Amino acid sequence: MGERGAPGDPGADGIGLPGKHTATLLPGTSFELETGTFTCSVSGTFVFMFSMNKSSSSSSLYVQLRKNDDVVVSGYSRASHYEQVSGSAVLFLQQGDTVYLTMSGNVGGAANHATSFSGFLLYPE
Amino acid sequence: MGERGAPGDPGADGIGLPGKHTATLLPGTSFELETGTFTCSVSGTFVFMFSMNKSSSSSSLYVQLRKNDDVVVSGYSRASHYEQVSGSAVLFLQQGDTVYLTMSGNVGGAANHATSFSGFLLYPE
Amino acid sequence: MGERGAPGDPGADGIGLPGKHTATLLPGTSFELETGTFTCSVSGTFVFMFSMNKSSSSSSLYVQLRKNDDVVVSGYSRASHYEQVSGSAVLFLQQGDTVYLTMSGNVGGAANHATSFSGFLLYPE
Repeated sequence: MGERGAPGDPGADGIGLPGKHTATLLPGTSFELETGTFTCSVSGTFVFMFSMNKSSSSSSLYVQLRKNDDVVVSGYSRASHYEQVSGSAVLFLQQGDTVYLTMSGNVGGAANHATSFSGFLLYPE
Repeated sequence: MGERGAPGDPGADGIGLPGKHTATLLPGTSFELETGTFTCSVSGTFVFMFSMNKSSSSSSLYVQLRKNDDVVVSGYSRASHYEQVSGSAVLFLQQGDTVYLTMSGNVGGAANHATSFSGFLLYPE
Repeated sequence: MGERGAPGDPGADGIGLPGKHTATLLPGTSFELETGTFTCSVSGTFVFMFSMNKSSSSSSLYVQLRKNDDVVVSGYSRASHYEQVSGSAVLFLQQGDTVYLTMSGNVGGAANHATSFSGFLLYPE
């Protein structure tokens, strides 16, 4: 699980969000904090969960969970205030597949651990 | 995991929501996209997660995760804007039990993958 | 999984929230409903998920998932209306570690099963 650092203004789609620290790294995990990208080293069924805190400083927050280049699930808020945006997915990954978050809008709450990205291997292939 | 299609106006409780497509189907899964209903074929402990995007076009969104006829967990939003409503449950199911979502209010974001319903078998009985 | 009862005014941080009932108790689980505290009896990797419904009766809802005394992940909303706040974490726990929720602000929707706290053992050590 990687807690998200303040992402500044990651802006455009397709750019992985950097992480701040990792609370738990599971066996076989390849999660690169600098890019916020998980690269699959053991093929199988994985579960991913994210939760982001929309800051009041942007008009919307749109978060995408991506497998390679494709959006799998997303979360969207147009709240004018701080608000939580959460989502999850069960994904079958082959070795080399990547999973990461992209977003537009601003997140807050990094100091309060209000943004997170977690995942785990459910069944090896 | 079934991404939800635009549900039109599913309205009244007790009516399963149709799905649009399935990203991952796990072994032993019986998920009927037409009705959005999961029917348990292997008894055991399951995990379910959902996330729906409330549209600005209804005054509230109320989503229920049901086991057979009972509400297990729900999510509720009275936002006037687009907003994410997420929930999850760990459930023990016997063969033949059904799990599905019902809701009142309108969801948006189907085109953006912002509504999803996922589940997996955690431990067979 | 423990569905949350109406917590009255649990207020200050560091006080576990009482639960109302438990839908599923997994083998090896030690979850005390009176205090809402999970105590680890089998060391390993666990997954926890929570979802709370912010009531319109408080200006904010701030929910913390804690391991022992530390905040692992949190959820925050400043909605003026009913709103769902969800989060999750993958945690490695040693025997005797505790996991529980704390919060400030008011939750609603207890009658509607809109607040929940779930967890499961993913891999024993």
